[in-house]
Order: sequence, then structure tokens, then C-alpha cells
Amino acid sequence: MKKLSELKNNQERREHLEKILKISLENTGAVMVDEEKMVHCENLVGAVSVPLGVAGPLKIAGEYTNGEYYLPLATTEGALVASVNRGCKAIRESGGANVYSYSVGVTRGPAFDVKSIAGNRKMFKWLKANEKEIAQVTQSTSKHLTYKKMVIKSSASYVFIRFYFDTDNAMGMNMATIATEAAVRLIEKETGFRCLSVAGNFDIDKKPAWINFIENRGKKVWSEVIIPKKILREVLKVDAQTLFDCWLAKCMIGSAMSGSLGFNAHFANNIAAIYIATGQDPAHVVEGSMGITTTKVLPNGDLYASVYLPAVLVGIVGGGTKLKTQQESLSMIGVKSSLALAEVIGGAVLAGEISLLASQAEGSLGKAHQKLGR
Amino acid sequence: MKKLSELKNNQERREHLEKILKISLENTGAVMVDEEKMVHCENLVGAVSVPLGVAGPLKIAGEYTNGEYYLPLATTEGALVASVNRGCKAIRESGGANVYSYSVGVTRGPAFDVKSIAGNRKMFKWLKANEKEIAQVTQSTSKHLTYKKMVIKSSASYVFIRFYFDTDNAMGMNMATIATEAAVRLIEKETGFRCLSVAGNFDIDKKPAWINFIENRGKKVWSEVIIPKKILREVLKVDAQTLFDCWLAKCMIGSAMSGSLGFNAHFANNIAAIYIATGQDPAHVVEGSMGITTTKVLPNGDLYASVYLPAVLVGIVGGGTKLKTQQESLSMIGVKSSLALAEVIGGAVLAGEISLLASQAEGSLGKAHQKLGR
Amino acid sequence: MKKLSELKNNQERREHLEKILKISLENTGAVMVDEEKMVHCENLVGAVSVPLGVAGPLKIAGEYTNGEYYLPLATTEGALVASVNRGCKAIRESGGANVYSYSVGVTRGPAFDVKSIAGNRKMFKWLKANEKEIAQVTQSTSKHLTYKKMVIKSSASYVFIRFYFDTDNAMGMNMATIATEAAVRLIEKETGFRCLSVAGNFDIDKKPAWINFIENRGKKVWSEVIIPKKILREVLKVDAQTLFDCWLAKCMIGSAMSGSLGFNAHFANNIAAIYIATGQDPAHVVEGSMGITTTKVLPNGDLYASVYLPAVLVGIVGGGTKLKTQQESLSMIGVKSSLALAEVIGGAVLAGEISLLASQAEGSLGKAHQKLGR
Amino acid sequence: MKKLSELKNNQERREHLEKILKISLENTGAVMVDEEKMVHCENLVGAVSVPLGVAGPLKIAGEYTNGEYYLPLATTEGALVASVNRGCKAIRESGGANVYSYSVGVTRGPAFDVKSIAGNRKMFKWLKANEKEIAQVTQSTSKHLTYKKMVIKSSASYVFIRFYFDTDNAMGMNMATIATEAAVRLIEKETGFRCLSVAGNFDIDKKPAWINFIENRGKKVWSEVIIPKKILREVLKVDAQTLFDCWLAKCMIGSAMSGSLGFNAHFANNIAAIYIATGQDPAHVVEGSMGITTTKVLPNGDLYASVYLPAVLVGIVGGGTKLKTQQESLSMIGVKSSLALAEVIGGAVLAGEISLLASQAEGSLGKAHQKLGR
Repeated sequence: MKKLSELKNNQERREHLEKILKISLENTGAVMVDEEKMVHCENLVGAVSVPLGVAGPLKIAGEYTNGEYYLPLATTEGALVASVNRGCKAIRESGGANVYSYSVGVTRGPAFDVKSIAGNRKMFKWLKANEKEIAQVTQSTSKHLTYKKMVIKSSASYVFIRFYFDTDNAMGMNMATIATEAAVRLIEKETGFRCLSVAGNFDIDKKPAWINFIENRGKKVWSEVIIPKKILREVLKVDAQTLFDCWLAKCMIGSAMSGSLGFNAHFANNIAAIYIATGQDPAHVVEGSMGITTTKVLPNGDLYASVYLPAVLVGIVGGGTKLKTQQESLSMIGVKSSLALAEVIGGAVLAGEISLLASQAEGSLGKAHQKLGR
Repeated sequence: MKKLSELKNNQERREHLEKILKISLENTGAVMVDEEKMVHCENLVGAVSVPLGVAGPLKIAGEYTNGEYYLPLATTEGALVASVNRGCKAIRESGGANVYSYSVGVTRGPAFDVKSIAGNRKMFKWLKANEKEIAQVTQSTSKHLTYKKMVIKSSASYVFIRFYFDTDNAMGMNMATIATEAAVRLIEKETGFRCLSVAGNFDIDKKPAWINFIENRGKKVWSEVIIPKKILREVLKVDAQTLFDCWLAKCMIGSAMSGSLGFNAHFANNIAAIYIATGQDPAHVVEGSMGITTTKVLPNGDLYASVYLPAVLVGIVGGGTKLKTQQESLSMIGVKSSLALAEVIGGAVLAGEISLLASQAEGSLGKAHQKLGR
Repeated sequence: MKKLSELKNNQERREHLEKILKISLENTGAVMVDEEKMVHCENLVGAVSVPLGVAGPLKIAGEYTNGEYYLPLATTEGALVASVNRGCKAIRESGGANVYSYSVGVTRGPAFDVKSIAGNRKMFKWLKANEKEIAQVTQSTSKHLTYKKMVIKSSASYVFIRFYFDTDNAMGMNMATIATEAAVRLIEKETGFRCLSVAGNFDIDKKPAWINFIENRGKKVWSEVIIPKKILREVLKVDAQTLFDCWLAKCMIGSAMSGSLGFNAHFANNIAAIYIATGQDPAHVVEGSMGITTTKVLPNGDLYASVYLPAVLVGIVGGGTKLKTQQESLSMIGVKSSLALAEVIGGAVLAGEISLLASQAEGSLGKAHQKLGR
Repeated sequence: MKKLSELKNNQERREHLEKILKISLENTGAVMVDEEKMVHCENLVGAVSVPLGVAGPLKIAGEYTNGEYYLPLATTEGALVASVNRGCKAIRESGGANVYSYSVGVTRGPAFDVKSIAGNRKMFKWLKANEKEIAQVTQSTSKHLTYKKMVIKSSASYVFIRFYFDTDNAMGMNMATIATEAAVRLIEKETGFRCLSVAGNFDIDKKPAWINFIENRGKKVWSEVIIPKKILREVLKVDAQTLFDCWLAKCMIGSAMSGSLGFNAHFANNIAAIYIATGQDPAHVVEGSMGITTTKVLPNGDLYASVYLPAVLVGIVGGGTKLKTQQESLSMIGVKSSLALAEVIGGAVLAGEISLLASQAEGSLGKAHQKLGR
């Protein structure tokens, strides 16, 4: 039997699978709009169509953004777009949200076998003494990549290096890998120590991990809004204290009881929907699900709400962002840099948090009223 | 200006956005193949096209599976499909992988304000005494839902309940929410305590959290294979010891140094690609990124490799699985139950782990050889 | 040169060390009040003297306690006793604290090599089918030990069992180990699988770990008090809102930012001081440092404060509790069961939390006043 | 009734308690050897006597140590001293262990209310611009304290600063607090932002937390030894592979399954015993329980074993180190700096790990042999 990789193009592969599996892949073929050679996906057979809704506009002001932004959300979860949309309305009517994003850099973290504590110290000294050369060799791999810093940690015979790179408007994981491979070659050659893995889970890519929360990865993003009590009542159907009680029980105490790295209501839902819409790597939803939502009841009964996302990995060039429909989603947002995209995402996540917390808080209150009304 | 939600259908919304934003959404419209009323996505404007590659066949034998399965992978990450494909080949030539999945149940975890320790104890006793009624009331909400158990934990004035439900062949999060809401109404009525959130992050949904690792969520899945040294060499270009050294440094020591819940190479990549292809909720990649890969060098130089996924949330009916292209991906796999799908995913993740670890291990070895050869 | 273990008694060992090291161990000898044969410490050379302060009385009412209790605190940290004492006063003047402790059981967690998924399932089935025999064999090792339950988890070729035992008024770790060794022998004999460690870190003893937080270990303890605003002001020099702001920033947000399992102000200080005073195992401070402090501002300006300790490992018989000075400390508390001791500890920890939070909150306020007063 | 704090000295307090509680505190009085005014413990009533055993000598070579060191261990856990002693013997006969300690600095982490993202950025800029002044003001509080660095993290309206100080040969927590209070006063005055707590759990003191593991606290310490297979067999009654299998199952997989920050066998036992013996703060056992033990089977069948302790908080002056018996324990070790003490502790912990792992590994093997021999 023929192998898929021996077939000429996605159409032949589809036909092959249709024949041997006795299935139809008609739609999978129909929704494939990109030229095959443009697509980074081997054994291509077509595409899946993920429904796209639009929320907003989201009104935000930040370092890289200022204005109203439509939010493309690729999702199959009912109520998600409607909920973010409601959050956007509340934010808009409150005068907009403040946002801010900061580029920490994408990371790669090779692991080395240094044999002993003596090796560990030798490696440490060599790295400290040769940081400039490391920076140079990594930067020689791409004109879009800038070396930022390295963090070195070791456990006896293992040394781990966490390299941080600025990768301009690309998310940059591939660029970072190539740069790290160049650094690894230099380090192996000069120190004689063997690299056990170019990605030693000290990066740490696409796994939940405290190092990414504490030391950040990609971009960190903050967003905040003050929602007057009138808008709370009219748009979100809740008062500040009830929402605060829900938040404290859920995002703080509940998350503590669960051993969570997510002290939030549902960052991941919005992150996933925007990442898929705009061609980001959807496995980075893992990093994006971490973070803290905070709320406060202000003395006048208004609500202060904020989100902190410690690790947002996004770009506006490269990878899936080149694809036609993803390009159209990006054009809807209309930002010119990955930092601006991160700020929009910060605002979108805030909108989603406010709306869901209001809904869960009011649900309970609603029921309480029902009960009390009997 | 008109609101998106006031417009009649996705075409009108597209045209509206195209006009006000001066962009084209031509492709976004073209890849929309489902009937709008079937789609759970508000403010629908079309769809995004995510490239679909196919790896396999994957040869597995489990409790619910036996045979060869093609793996639909929706991704824009170059090399991912090729890598999983290589892992499938190694598994196939090794005689196949063993897999096993077990349904723990999908969870919802409401938070209650019980005022005091006395309230906490009153609540605990009431719940224990009335579990049958709770089971009944939750099961009355759907004929597809079966009450499994509850875990009760409290921190003074807060009580959290983690309900587990079997939801047949659906992932079941929505079913679980509706059932939990019914339980909450009963509990509020009978105990007088107020529910602060129907989802008190004790579920805990779509956030990295140890409770889901330790007590599981959805399905837990195991997969294992023994790869003879000949196949290691020929297919994976590596020997068992080198792969083992890479695994120990990366998946164990590196993950420990990073404070990770993922002791694996890259579960999330495969999980994301299969989830998107088959219409699962992509935010559940968060849960799917947790887990452990283990390798061992057998006395004869063969490699034992296994994966353990503590929280896999998948279904073959409901949600995004109903969509046309997602249906086609599911038909490619051809399983008849969510437990079988979980087993296929276990095997697919194993294939991806083996191939990536081999590649990272051999990369380092290759370079070592290069260096030594000078 | 002679070995310490070859010398006859602690005096000879002291003299030997004094001679070869040219030091004096006069006081180390002088503070040794127990008979050598009673002491579980090899190569005994004497003892160290740890200063003992007394706080209280602490007024509490619980399931196993009711009344006023003096708190012996062995510590060298200035202000600790005074701070707990102030907390006790605040609690006393507020009418006392509610406490409650529940015995989850001490745990031991052996690890087995089961070779494969098939072995894993075989082991699981055997354990489930033979739980009664396991209970019997463990209980045959001590008349003070009762088998409670087991939790089984596995990662492919590894099976971990977490046994829970009730050990009456002893902390019971040794009893649990002996019981587990008996169970292990039975399991090895009947299943043919090899135990890799009787303590496979699934217990998990004396290491910070989420499983002990989430599933508890030893005893779990709650304590709470409502402090009227008059007493806040007069005894604790703070108002409820200021203390609450400090608590939320420190115990919730700060702990989240740090990746902590301790959402509290300083459980460990009080736990260490009471454990050393009463002859508990001081390494169990690790488990005792986990847990949550909660505060709330009540509508009338009073403060609700509570603590939740998920894993308290204490006894009133066995181990260090038999020593003379430790006996005297226990007699000062005067409880008749380990559950009662756990409740006293819950109250003591609450007293320490209130006082420290007040002090840190007021410190900041004080400085704010200073600044504002300029 | 009289208050304890109103009584004149520890004798009067004892007599008072003896009378009202109808107990004897004779021994508690007898083991009090320090002058009351020297002791940092309020409401002093005497002392508890903690048995002291001695293990060793431990042979180590490090940056600050070189030679053989006796280990004073204050403990009531049977077998602990004997086990460490056996580990010391194995290390000694293997030629000694390598050790290395590095001073990261003790930390204090105040929390500030900065109101908004704008405040957050203002604070960040001010701190960066005024680091010299902060260093100066903190250093002005003690001639033993040197400012090292600060790490600033924020979640919207909260800013946390983690100050690192070198405190010479003292553990330095009090010094660090006083220095931080001075910094806080400066920051409050210059920025107008209010400090919510001088210790905002970003330090984070005496709670298990990933930030202390990942970014270290106090001193980090490594230790390693290669144990020839002859000594494994004769002293530790085990072969390298069996010990390795036990280690991998327990310290790696088992710890992963438990959500632990301790990837070790029992750091806390040795840490607690040495800390109490030498007058360290026993609540710092929490930090000391974190860390990684690693083992490897070398090609010739020898064993490589190492430990990594990310957060060791010790001193040789100040606090409990001044007390008479604690002074005698320190004199037994005979080191001249806190870095040297940390290296000795690293070696001691390694000795304990090797011995316990051997015992658990061999236990299982022993039983396997028993079974096989039938």
C-alpha cells in the first residue's frame, strides 16, 4: 500500500484515504484555500473549518494600541463570543480599558551533561565570560533575532541555560531554536560538554510550569478597567460586591485548593479562540492559561478589574499567520506589531473575565433571589 | 453604526466588517461549510481554515481499540506531522503500542459560602446524607449523564464540591454544568447556603492545576511500546541509552527545575492538533499538556517508552464534533466511542514523544560525533 | 581512632569529642535529662536546650476541646511568643475561636515495578479484590493501627499506592511503615511484582507536595474567630479593612506570584515552635507550612478570620513525646488525644496569623500616617 | 489571675504554671542553661531538651571546606543518626564528597498598592532609576548587610519587590526586614504608594514555593560523590542499578505524581536535625526540604550521587546560634563561615540520601530475594 508521503498533493492523499477508509473528505478539500507549498504541514490532505465569530469593538489604550478593535474568535463553544462581546460593551461604556505589554523574549533552554560540580562551575564561568560571543553567534542566525539574556541553573551534573531572544514581530520559537542550536555548537566545541537536548524543558515550551509564570515568557500583558456601578447593573446584571465574592471564592481560594497556576476565570477560552483565529500556535494556550484576575470594590461601589498574563506567545508574521483566513483575522484587528497584538489580547481576556464572573456571580445571586422570593 | 448581532447572517456581518474596516474577508467566507444554525458561535462571520495533515497509520491494541488508525492533525507547525508519522512507523514496525483509557468523568466544582466551621460541617453532613438525591437530580437533566461521585473540600467558610459525571460519548462539560446547576439549586434550597459560583475553580476547567493531575479529569490514558534496537537505529537514528539520557535530563530533571506539571517532551503539540482536527475544545489542551513520559533501557538494548495522560477531555458527539470537516477527521479515525478516541490519542501522543526525543537526543549525539570526528 | 558507636554512653562520647576536637560539650551534657536507653537517637552525646516560652491562654471550642489552653512554644525567634500571645488575647476577648480537626490518617506510599500496562491493570484488580486481606495484614502489625483506605495511581510501568492508617494517639509514621511493609510482602508474594521502595514519595513524607494539600495527610484542622472592631483597634491596633488589604495582597496575590503552597502569613513559625516543644517530628513542619488563611470584613466592620491546615501530623504518645521536657510541655496543654492537640494547634496558628497580619498591616498604615502627618 | 508577662523571670512563670495547672515543670527548668536576658523568647519558662547524636566524620572538599567534619544532629527519630553515619562512612571510604555553596542572599518581598497599570509602570521606573539610593538606605541599617539586587513583578495594581541581601555570617532574616523597612519608607515617601505588607509573600519566607526553588534563597548548595561498587556492596548493601531504580521511581516519578517540590528522599530530616542542633530557625526546614537528588549508574557499575539544595538559610552568628548548647554543636563542626556551614550541610544531606535510598532499595531487593529463595 502506498504511503501518504509518496503521493503528489493533498488531492491525491484525500482520494487515497477516501478509497482505503471508505469515507468522504469532500469538505476537508473544499476548505483548503492556501497554496500547498505555502503550508507548513506534511502529508497535507486539506483543512478543517473552524467557525469564526467576532466580538467587540474592544476599546483600549496602551503603549502600542489606542482605539477600538474587533476581536476574531475561532471557536465552537456556544456563548463564548456573546460573552466576550458583552464584556467589550461593558468596557466600552466604561470608557475603555488600559493595557500594557512588555516583551520578555521567547526562550529556549538546552540541557548539558557537565559530569560534576567542577564541570558545573567551569561551564558557569565559561558562559559568563563568553556571553558576548554567544550573543553574536545566536544573532548571526537571523537578522530578526536579538539576544536578550541567559539564566543558568544547575543540579550537580546537569546545567540548564534559559536563553531569551527578542524575535521582532514573529512569535519566534523556530528562530530561537536555530539560534540556540548555534549557541549549543559553540558551547560544546569550547567547553567539551555534551548537550543532552537543545530543549531541556527549561524553556519550557507548551507545558504548565512555574518558571514561565514567575520569570515570564514571550510577552507579559496587563489590562484593567473601572466599571461604574450603573454599567455593572445594566450591562453585567450584577453589583460589585457580588462579583467580588464570586471572584475571591473562585479565582483565589478555589484555585489555591486545586493547586492551580491559573488564578482566573477562563483565560484559556479567549486565548484559544484568538490564537486559532490569527494563526498562532494553539499549544501555547498552555502558557496563556496561566495568570491572575483581580477585582476590587471601590468605595463608591464601582468595580476595578484587572488581568495579568505572564506568558503570551504571539506574532503577526511567520507560522500560521501567513495563511489566508488567518491573515484576514489579523487584518480585522489591524495591529502593526506583536506587542500591539498582545495588548489587544490582554483587553480581550479582560472582557471575557468580567463577563463570565458577572454571569457566575449573578447566577448564584439570581438563584438566591429566587429562593428568597418564595 | 450597526451592531454585528443585529445583522442577519454571516455574509452580512462579513460585508459590514469589510466595509467599515476596509478589508477583505473573502476566504473567511469561502471556508464556511456548515449551516449557520448548526454552529455554536455567535456573531458568526465565516471560518478559518486550519491545514490538516495525516500521520500513520498508528498500530495500537487496547481495551476499546485494536488495529491501525490514521491520525488527522490540524496544525501550522512544520515537522509536526512528519515527526508523529515517524513515531507511528517506529511503533508499527515494533509490533504496535499497548493503550488503555479509563473514564474518570468530567467535573464541575461549585463554591459555597457556608459562613463558618459549623456551616461547613452542616454542609458536609447534608451532602453525605443526600448523595442519592443529588445523583437523581443531576441525572434528571440528561439521559446521557450519570452521576459518579463527589469530592468535598473546605477552607473554613468556603465549601467546594467536585462532582464527577459520566457523559457517555460526549466530552460533556455543558451537560455537567447543567447537572451541577440543578444540584446547586437543590443544595441552596435545602441547606440555605449560597452558591458563589457554579464553577468555583475546583473543577478545575482549562487551567493548569495539580488536582486534575492527581485526581484526574475526563479520561486518563496510558500507552506504551517496546522498540527493538534495530528499529531505534533504522527509523529513529538513535540508540536507547542516548534517548534515555535525553529523556532523564529533559522530562525529569528539566521539568523539576522549571516547576512543571508536564514531565513530557511535547504532549501539547499533538493534543492541540488532534483536538482541533476532531472538533474538541482546544482550551482543553491545557489539561492535555500535563502528564509523564517514561523511558527505560532494557537489558538487551531495546527501549521501553510510555506516556501517562492524567486528564484527556474528548468526545465523539456534541460541540465541535458535529461540524462537517471535523466529522470527516473523526471518520478518518473511525472510532465508535470517546474511550476509543482517548486510546488513539494516547498512542498518537506516544508516537510524537518517541520521535521528538529521538530527534533531540540524536541532534546532540550528532553534534558530539561531529566534534569528536574533527 | 575509636568510633563514636563503639563508646559506651553519651558521657564517653562527649569526652571523646571534647578531646579530639578540643572543644567543651559541658552544657550539651548538662541538659540531657532523659535516660539514654529511652532516647531514640544513636551516637547520643547529650542534648540541646531550646528556649521555651508560653503564650495564652488560648480560648477555643471544638469537637475535642473546650476551654483555655496554654501554648508551649520552643523557639529562638524574638517576638514570636509575644505575637502569638497577643493573638490569644484578641481571640479570648472576642469570646474564643471555633476549631475542628478531622483524622484523615497517616500515609505510606510504596512504588511497584509492574512492567507494563497489563501489569498495571493486573495490580489494580488484585488490589481492589484483596483490600480486606491487605487491611487485615496491616492491622496485624499493631493493635493501635486501623487500615482506612488506599488510593492507587499509576504511570505505565509504575504503580503507586497511598495507604491511609488511623494510628490512634500516635503520629504513627513508624507504625504505618511497618504496616506497609507487611502489605508490600503480601502484594509482592501474590502478584509477583517487585516493590521499588516502601516509601515511593506518594506518601509523601516531609516534602512540600500538592497531594498532601489536596488529599490531606494526618489531620486536617480548621479554626475561625470573629474579632469585633473594638478589639481589633485596642488589642491589634488595626481596622478590619486594612488587615484585609494586607491579607489579600500577601496571602493570596503574593503567594500566587510565588508559586506557593502556603497561602498564609507564617503557619510554619507556630507549627515549628509547638512541634519542638511537644516532641513532634520537626520535619513535619514542611506539611504544616501548607494551608490557607482567610479574612473577611463583616458588614459591621468586625473581622472574620480563619485558617485551614490540610496536613497536621501530631501525636501525644510515641516518638519524642515521651521525653521529660516534652512531656511537661504536653502536660501544660493538657489534652487527652491527638485530635484535641490538633485543634489546639489550629487555634494557636490562628492566633499567630491574626497578630502578624495586624502587625504587618498596621506597620504600613502607621508609616502611611507618618507620611501623611508630615 | 496574673499574666505570665507580668512575672519576673522564668522561675516565677514556671511556678505560676505549675500551681494553676497542677503540673511539674522541673525538667523544663533544669535544662535552661542560658542567661534569660540572652534569650530571644518572651514569657520564657525554661527550655526543652532535644537529644543530640553525632554522625561522621563527613569527608568533604569544597570552596569553603576541606577535611572531616562531625555532624551534630538533634532528633528524636530512631535510626536517623545511624543512617547518616552510614552514609558518611560510604562517602569517607569513597574518598570524600565534593561540595559547593553559593550565596544568593536572604530575601524580603514587600507588596505595594500602586492603584493602576500607570502606577505599576511609574513604580517600576522609579525603582530602576533609584536602585543606588535603595541600596544605600538599606545598607545604612547594618554594617553586616550588603544590598545585592531586586526583582520586581506586578499584577496590575500590586507591585512586589524581592530584595536580596548578603548578610555575612548571619542567616539575616531580621537584618533583611529592617533594611527592607527602610527601603519601604523611602519608596512610600518618594512614590506616594502605600506598602500593604513589608513581607508580601514574595520573599517568600517559610512557605513551600516555586520562586525559592527557581530563583533560590539564602544559599544554594551542591554535593556529589562517586561510590565504587565495592563500597556500595559492603557499606550500603546494594548495587548501583537497584539503588538507581529505587531513586527513579521514588524521587522522580513518585514526586511528579505527588505534585512535589521535593525530588529527594528525605532532605528535611537531616536539615531539621542540623538546624535545631546549631540554632538555626527550624521553620526554614520548609525551604530546606526542596531540591533534587540525582543518581547515575556509571559504566563500571559505580554510583554517582548528588544533591542540589536550592534554598539553605543558615548562619553561624545571631539568633539561636548564640545559645550555649547550640554553640557547642557549632564548635563540633568547627566552620568559620555560613558558606562553609552550608557546604557541610550539603554533604550531610548527601550522606542521608545515599543511606536511605540504599536501605529502601535493598529492602525491596531483600524481600525479592526472600520471595525468590522460597
